[in-house]
Amino acid sequence: MTTFEKTEKNRVKRLPERAAYSDEVIYPIIDEAIICHVGFVLDGQPFVIPTLHARRDKTILLHGASSSRLMRHAASGAELCITMTLLDGLVLARSVFSHSANYRSVVLFGKGAIIDKPEEKLQALQELTEWIMPGRWAEARKPNEKELKATTIVAIPIELATAKVRQGSPGDEEADYQLDVWAGVLPIKQQIGQPIGDPRLKEGIKLPDNVKRYVLDQGH
Amino acid sequence: MTTFEKTEKNRVKRLPERAAYSDEVIYPIIDEAIICHVGFVLDGQPFVIPTLHARRDKTILLHGASSSRLMRHAASGAELCITMTLLDGLVLARSVFSHSANYRSVVLFGKGAIIDKPEEKLQALQELTEWIMPGRWAEARKPNEKELKATTIVAIPIELATAKVRQGSPGDEEADYQLDVWAGVLPIKQQIGQPIGDPRLKEGIKLPDNVKRYVLDQGH
Repeated sequence: MTTFEKTEKNRVKRLPERAAYSDEVIYPIIDEAIICHVGFVLDGQPFVIPTLHARRDKTILLHGASSSRLMRHAASGAELCITMTLLDGLVLARSVFSHSANYRSVVLFGKGAIIDKPEEKLQALQELTEWIMPGRWAEARKPNEKELKATTIVAIPIELATAKVRQGSPGDEEADYQLDVWAGVLPIKQQIGQPIGDPRLKEGIKLPDNVKRYVLDQGH
Repeated sequence: MTTFEKTEKNRVKRLPERAAYSDEVIYPIIDEAIICHVGFVLDGQPFVIPTLHARRDKTILLHGASSSRLMRHAASGAELCITMTLLDGLVLARSVFSHSANYRSVVLFGKGAIIDKPEEKLQALQELTEWIMPGRWAEARKPNEKELKATTIVAIPIELATAKVRQGSPGDEEADYQLDVWAGVLPIKQQIGQPIGDPRLKEGIKLPDNVKRYVLDQGH
């Protein structure tokens, strides 16, 4: 187990009892989230861009078009903030004030470095592909030289990270429990539905087992 | 219809055919997203924090604990970037390179201003509550003076906004359609489940119709 350092940057001030700094809490949230939101600063202006990610131990891998603003900036070595959020429910309390959401989120900080040696790049692309859909690297056509060139891969070692988690029932003021108000939780879940074959699918091509398993397991 | 200006800040450079600047595309994405990710800059460092939001015409409303870093910063009038993302599916193509995601996202820019006149604040809190769960303001106990004081509400007029949307089947290279590779889309949907009553629910209190409707309609 690793516990990330608490600094002014990542210490949770508001409701610190919801915060965790251990990788045992943080990594499963990173891993369950299919997308993350990457924050960066350009000329003092914040940008927040959604993208897919993978985790290699204590490092986040991002990939994208070499021409994109996100990838060019992520590759520049500037400070990044990457946030993964799993929304688990709406919490309806007896008072307006105690309404809340159930969620698991991670906010992490680090700087990106481009992976540009061809074999390391191919390796990272394989990891990203396998992360998002296990077994897919073996199935799909591998990238050619031109495609590899058009793709940028950035590795961001996690320097600091914080998880924040709220779960369970509403937390009302003691006196409010006597009110005639319905209270409870509306659970929210990201649902992966049945695969929709491409209209141009070649005849006789069956849905592969790894894709079936992904739907059954509801994720990688 | 309003079309937001295209500037260096919000113009989509990569795959501009996926971009839209009209409120007819942008507002429904903001409205369907239950949460947003707010980006801000502190001492040159980007922060990205998830939170609930509401929209009042061309303005985003955020609320939170007055003591939170997000709210203190959002209230300061500094530049913010707010991103809403709806992940609609994973796109499995015949080539690794053409893999993608289906999504609808909005990136918007603006500066926050605190709403602190008591009646405007109460009005905004009512709008936020009704936005998240229609009918809830009438059901739940209204905020008292102490609770109002502990809540900060910030209004962010949208200065610039961009939507980016990808939908539909994989877009493979023409030659790849001959490959014996399964291709298609795994649809992803945020599912709102059956309400879970608080264990301390007073006897005889029924699930209100607005909450039932929220589940039936899968959102506000």
